[in-house]
Amino acid sequence: MKLTEIQDPSFLKRMSVSELEVFAGDIRRFLIEELATTGGHLAPNLGVVELTLALHREFDSPNDKFVWDVGHQAYVHKILTGRAGQFDTLRQHKGLCGFPKRNESIHDVWETGHSSTSLSAAMGIAVSNELKGNDDRAIAIIGDGALTGGMALEALNHIGAEQQNVIVILNDNEMSIAPNVGAMHQMLGRIRSSRKVRYAQDELETLIKKIPLIGGKLEKGGEKIKEAVKGALVPGMFFEELGFNYYGPVDGHDLDDLIEQLNYVKKEEGPVLLHVITKKGKGYRPAEYDGVGTWHGLGPYKIESGEVIKGKSKAPSYSFTVADTLTKMARDEDKLTLITPAMSVGSKLDCFEKEFPNRMFDVGIAEQHAVTFAAGQATQGMKPVVSIYSTFFQRAYDQLVHDVARQNLDVTFTIDRSGLVGADGETHQGVFDIAFMRHVPNIRIVMAKDENELQHLLYSAVKYEGPIAVRFPRGEGIGVTMDETLHEISLDTWEVEREGTDVAIMAFGPQVQDALKIAELLEGDLSVRVINARTIKPLDEKMLDALYAEGIPLVTLEEAVLKGGFGSAVLEHANEQEAFPRVKRFGIPDWYIEHGGVNELLEEIGLLPGQIAEEVRSFVNQGKKQSV
Amino acid sequence: MKLTEIQDPSFLKRMSVSELEVFAGDIRRFLIEELATTGGHLAPNLGVVELTLALHREFDSPNDKFVWDVGHQAYVHKILTGRAGQFDTLRQHKGLCGFPKRNESIHDVWETGHSSTSLSAAMGIAVSNELKGNDDRAIAIIGDGALTGGMALEALNHIGAEQQNVIVILNDNEMSIAPNVGAMHQMLGRIRSSRKVRYAQDELETLIKKIPLIGGKLEKGGEKIKEAVKGALVPGMFFEELGFNYYGPVDGHDLDDLIEQLNYVKKEEGPVLLHVITKKGKGYRPAEYDGVGTWHGLGPYKIESGEVIKGKSKAPSYSFTVADTLTKMARDEDKLTLITPAMSVGSKLDCFEKEFPNRMFDVGIAEQHAVTFAAGQATQGMKPVVSIYSTFFQRAYDQLVHDVARQNLDVTFTIDRSGLVGADGETHQGVFDIAFMRHVPNIRIVMAKDENELQHLLYSAVKYEGPIAVRFPRGEGIGVTMDETLHEISLDTWEVEREGTDVAIMAFGPQVQDALKIAELLEGDLSVRVINARTIKPLDEKMLDALYAEGIPLVTLEEAVLKGGFGSAVLEHANEQEAFPRVKRFGIPDWYIEHGGVNELLEEIGLLPGQIAEEVRSFVNQGKKQSV
Repeated sequence: MKLTEIQDPSFLKRMSVSELEVFAGDIRRFLIEELATTGGHLAPNLGVVELTLALHREFDSPNDKFVWDVGHQAYVHKILTGRAGQFDTLRQHKGLCGFPKRNESIHDVWETGHSSTSLSAAMGIAVSNELKGNDDRAIAIIGDGALTGGMALEALNHIGAEQQNVIVILNDNEMSIAPNVGAMHQMLGRIRSSRKVRYAQDELETLIKKIPLIGGKLEKGGEKIKEAVKGALVPGMFFEELGFNYYGPVDGHDLDDLIEQLNYVKKEEGPVLLHVITKKGKGYRPAEYDGVGTWHGLGPYKIESGEVIKGKSKAPSYSFTVADTLTKMARDEDKLTLITPAMSVGSKLDCFEKEFPNRMFDVGIAEQHAVTFAAGQATQGMKPVVSIYSTFFQRAYDQLVHDVARQNLDVTFTIDRSGLVGADGETHQGVFDIAFMRHVPNIRIVMAKDENELQHLLYSAVKYEGPIAVRFPRGEGIGVTMDETLHEISLDTWEVEREGTDVAIMAFGPQVQDALKIAELLEGDLSVRVINARTIKPLDEKMLDALYAEGIPLVTLEEAVLKGGFGSAVLEHANEQEAFPRVKRFGIPDWYIEHGGVNELLEEIGLLPGQIAEEVRSFVNQGKKQSV
Repeated sequence: MKLTEIQDPSFLKRMSVSELEVFAGDIRRFLIEELATTGGHLAPNLGVVELTLALHREFDSPNDKFVWDVGHQAYVHKILTGRAGQFDTLRQHKGLCGFPKRNESIHDVWETGHSSTSLSAAMGIAVSNELKGNDDRAIAIIGDGALTGGMALEALNHIGAEQQNVIVILNDNEMSIAPNVGAMHQMLGRIRSSRKVRYAQDELETLIKKIPLIGGKLEKGGEKIKEAVKGALVPGMFFEELGFNYYGPVDGHDLDDLIEQLNYVKKEEGPVLLHVITKKGKGYRPAEYDGVGTWHGLGPYKIESGEVIKGKSKAPSYSFTVADTLTKMARDEDKLTLITPAMSVGSKLDCFEKEFPNRMFDVGIAEQHAVTFAAGQATQGMKPVVSIYSTFFQRAYDQLVHDVARQNLDVTFTIDRSGLVGADGETHQGVFDIAFMRHVPNIRIVMAKDENELQHLLYSAVKYEGPIAVRFPRGEGIGVTMDETLHEISLDTWEVEREGTDVAIMAFGPQVQDALKIAELLEGDLSVRVINARTIKPLDEKMLDALYAEGIPLVTLEEAVLKGGFGSAVLEHANEQEAFPRVKRFGIPDWYIEHGGVNELLEEIGLLPGQIAEEVRSFVNQGKKQSV
């Protein structure tokens, strides 16, 4: 069957296991070839080829509902539900989304991008099925990494207690983006190491009969016996304790076994968890033997050599600058610690980890804990830094409000991927953090215009004693010369980058460069002042008051939501000063921004420098007309 | 020893167990007598008298650090650390805080109010101790209810994996505010029911020897054996699986046992959990035999009769109006479901639960799951309502942004305790929700001026298909007549409550009444228009544009943070319309508002009607001067 001819997954039911095995190879080839051009989450999808085939064969989507946790492993599901033909547009503007998307297919029932939502969603679906009186199944497919997220554990607790018909497929590949951490991960490891022990009902008898043997080992000490009992008798005890019937572990690349186990699972009443062991990157050597996560999600690559095609790097990434600066600072400041919720690869923290392993804490996918753990350290005079993506920081809003800022603790947040992120799309855009932080008392928010200012601003932020957030964008710096020595810069003043008399643009982060471009575009026509408004909270009120007094038209520019954002802060301050400046605000409008190239997205919402320049021109000219 | 003469807890080390038992009685008497006047969290504190005595006797605070989860059970700790003399000011303005407070005592190392933060904080403290090279202990005291919060589970996973020296005291009283729910709660129940089985190292041998007996029960079927193995052999298996050494369960009112167990625990390396069974309200009959949570936290009462002293109720509470309206609606709308994260008592949801038990879901302390569980239901065409306190909704910000609003799902949030809450203080003030919701695409936010409008507004909100938040304050309505029949009202228009020509005050919720009072206070002097701005998002743009055109001075009034709030929304809209109205904004300033009577707090920040009236007068007069 040609993959592009698939309409829906019903044809799978007529295929034998050996046919399915051949078909799995076709899908792998397709993924490897298509993603070589577009990029995408190759390794996670190669890992779930057989699992997805088995699921679609044994269940009836869309009556039975699959909920893919995180969602980047749903490519095979997309192929099987009639979307193979769109893979050349994967993660591109207006193209196929890299995550499940309800408007793409009736087989996509739940959209996601952040981790650990699938169990709660599946519980919601299962309860609805029961109330509506139908027998449809709710099936959550969740990785071992995502399982450590607090919400997933809250959901396990609820599902287990209600004994709801929820099927959990635990896709255990021993790593999420980076190698997994945590006690649950270690527990799963203990299970994997005793993998031949199947926990199917009919095998329990045999197991119990072995108990006297365990009793015989008594002399070797209580501790060992305890471990033996735990490891051999009850591999799924953790889940059993929470009210789940545990099946597995099963080899996730053995279709025979998978199908057999799914048939057990289908017949269960109440919550059931099937533990499936998969191998990320399975069937493509470079991805299969990738220990650091390169092949988790990536751009184009050469199929034969497994060489990742990289654009020529002009400058170090902002992430690297942050990690490098923290590493330098940690040499002199032994109170400095670094905490990441599973993003050490993405935020390039390996240099810090290598030099200060005992001051680096990867807490797994657990943003709430990461932030309050930092707060706990700060109460003891440590100087913790939480490295976190803007979009994932959303998970720890209450921990910021209630634990860090309320106690006015000395925690620095380095906020990676602030602004639009591009291909990951609407679940990942880092555009809300200013609006959700700005109203929190005690917090400061800063953003540097380039990577050199970033290192100094971060240096100053860590020195500062109190809660402070240092935002920085995804990707590379602009290639400025990096100073050798770190120095402190003010955390409450702005700087004029370029003088001008007709209009003043206030911007921060990479948008300072945009503002300079706008000034150039308008040169000869308008004299544009550019202000680097690097402290978003507090504002440079002195400079603002002078601007109001001067009466110059003002423009605010931010790659963040307009509502409650930086521009609003400027309006609020003017209002408090009973000033009435003319202000034009540019930023993200009140809707979710989908996936696509950042420039395409900016164009769509009118935020390219050329577009803004035209708006600024008419804004200034209109003012001149009015004052005539 | 007179309680008011205590300076620090060191004297406890010299007391015998029988002396401690007498002393426990003194403390109980003190609590019962003091709280009869002030009110407060009586039952939780009566439950931890012996536990707190034993902890302070066996550990050395403040070197060893106690982290009280939620914090409302720290009264005994406050007594033992020199604050008995201040109990007559408990939870009053400028008086003793109802929660741990770092500026009250060096023995308070961690402030809280929200649940489930203690394990993360203790982990932060333990890591700091290790890095600083000291042997001080980090001890978290957490209830079984708080343990189900996602962050607590994230922390267990991290502590267990790192094998950090954290001591967890699980204060298992079988109920938090309401009776607890969830699989973990059921698991703890299984342990309690086999309470004589102690899991101390030296008893394991005896246990293992009993295994052949279990083997003998084989004929009765695998399932029963599994249960037997689980229940009898490994009461703490869940925690053991996460890397903790489990001790207990121990009777939390038996000082001998408690001290013995704490001595075991003290000697452990790595994470250890001591499971303590306590009885809420212990030693005071009305509180001990309270099945519904009346004595969890309450106002003044009569000691002899156990009668709670209630002010004469003028009107039904807002919470009741919401629960009652939802119950009425559920009779006709079988898709309506109701979800609460453990706040069924506080939000008076029992009427709904009684009539529609299968459509009511108390998910325990699990705000994240509550919201995404609702989203899962909404994808299946249900009409879920999430009943949640404003302050606890902070925990589910990402679930609102990423799961509900992004998918534009039909979820109604009824946001209880919006605005200042008074005695619970800065951890509980419901003042951030507008600022953290207003920038979220697709969401609507509304608030009614009184309980009658509330029922209609809620009715309309549930009918509306999309995400919508209905805010309402703590406490009683204002006593208006309630319409018999529910009807729909507009979700995007405001209403003029009182005509006026000198100034227009826009307010929502109970502040509409304040605005009317202000209008009366200024009567004869200024003609004040009062607008019921019940839709906070979207604004009534038509009315606003007319106001701008009219040129009347504008006042915005909200019991919510000013930054990013309703007043800012008005400024933003004016800015977008290139209008320049004079606007004066009243709301919560940029700091945390501590505990005290709501009126005292309002006075402190200048938000009493009389104070506002004077400000409005000078605002309007100043404008008149300027225009002369």
